[in-house]
Amino acid sequence: MNESTTPAIQDFYPDDFAHCFCCGRLNPSSHGLKSFVEGEEAVAHFTPAAYHISVPGFVYGGLLASLVDCHAMATAAAAAEHAAGRRIGDGPAPRFVTADLHVVYLKPTPLGVELEIRGHITERSERKGVVALTVSAAGVVTVRADVVAVRMPESMGQRSS
Amino acid sequence: MNESTTPAIQDFYPDDFAHCFCCGRLNPSSHGLKSFVEGEEAVAHFTPAAYHISVPGFVYGGLLASLVDCHAMATAAAAAEHAAGRRIGDGPAPRFVTADLHVVYLKPTPLGVELEIRGHITERSERKGVVALTVSAAGVVTVRADVVAVRMPESMGQRSS
Repeated sequence: MNESTTPAIQDFYPDDFAHCFCCGRLNPSSHGLKSFVEGEEAVAHFTPAAYHISVPGFVYGGLLASLVDCHAMATAAAAAEHAAGRRIGDGPAPRFVTADLHVVYLKPTPLGVELEIRGHITERSERKGVVALTVSAAGVVTVRADVVAVRMPESMGQRSS
Repeated sequence: MNESTTPAIQDFYPDDFAHCFCCGRLNPSSHGLKSFVEGEEAVAHFTPAAYHISVPGFVYGGLLASLVDCHAMATAAAAAEHAAGRRIGDGPAPRFVTADLHVVYLKPTPLGVELEIRGHITERSERKGVVALTVSAAGVVTVRADVVAVRMPESMGQRSS
């Protein structure tokens, strides 16, 4: 299976929780990140715009932090579905939020090429998932990240009504 | 001294390095973050737009990561100037880039109010600065972060010519 034959994880977030600035399909200003299950990993591809710049020639680190953040939430959602015996696309995907985000910038990320974001679960419980991620540009890993995702608390969901 | 009487740190980044997606005065798509020296700290205020959303009612965590990222670079720049016996506004401010970004989301950050970002140096050398930061909403700290800033390497500057 590949990105052309599997559904995007974010496409199955419930409508009430699909407004994220980075990956929300219902937010017209969103970056539009889409993450896909690929074996034991989740993968996303994203080409930053010219204005997603830090200094000339390189991608802004806060955008890279955003990409790994949302991709980690999607990876955790897919793992939770898998653990429950379901696949992405079988129904609404569970919504996770970020508790802890640690991004290491190994080298500058060049602007103007497609980036690949990969994530896999390193620890999981009913309530949370820990996700290890990389961002690569032209096959070179430029960023490593570890993100703790937790199930969205009811206190956040209640604000959406 | 306060924000109305002190110059913004980012206003003194050299023109070649003032395009950042979060704080670049020469990037029309930038979030427009501006950081100010206030005693031993640097402080910034920012009101997220409606589209800077995670789930309804709350600010997107990747935006919060971006705000602490750029505010940390500004804090490191101000500390470097101070160590050199200069003040922000005396000349071009040194440009730092992010090596390591660690953000802890203590609680959801409400959308629709002005945020306050504070940073102070915890460790400094000629080459780097470690910055501890908080983000507060209506007086409540919702985010803590630690960021390692390093002087922009020549390899990045050379790409700007």
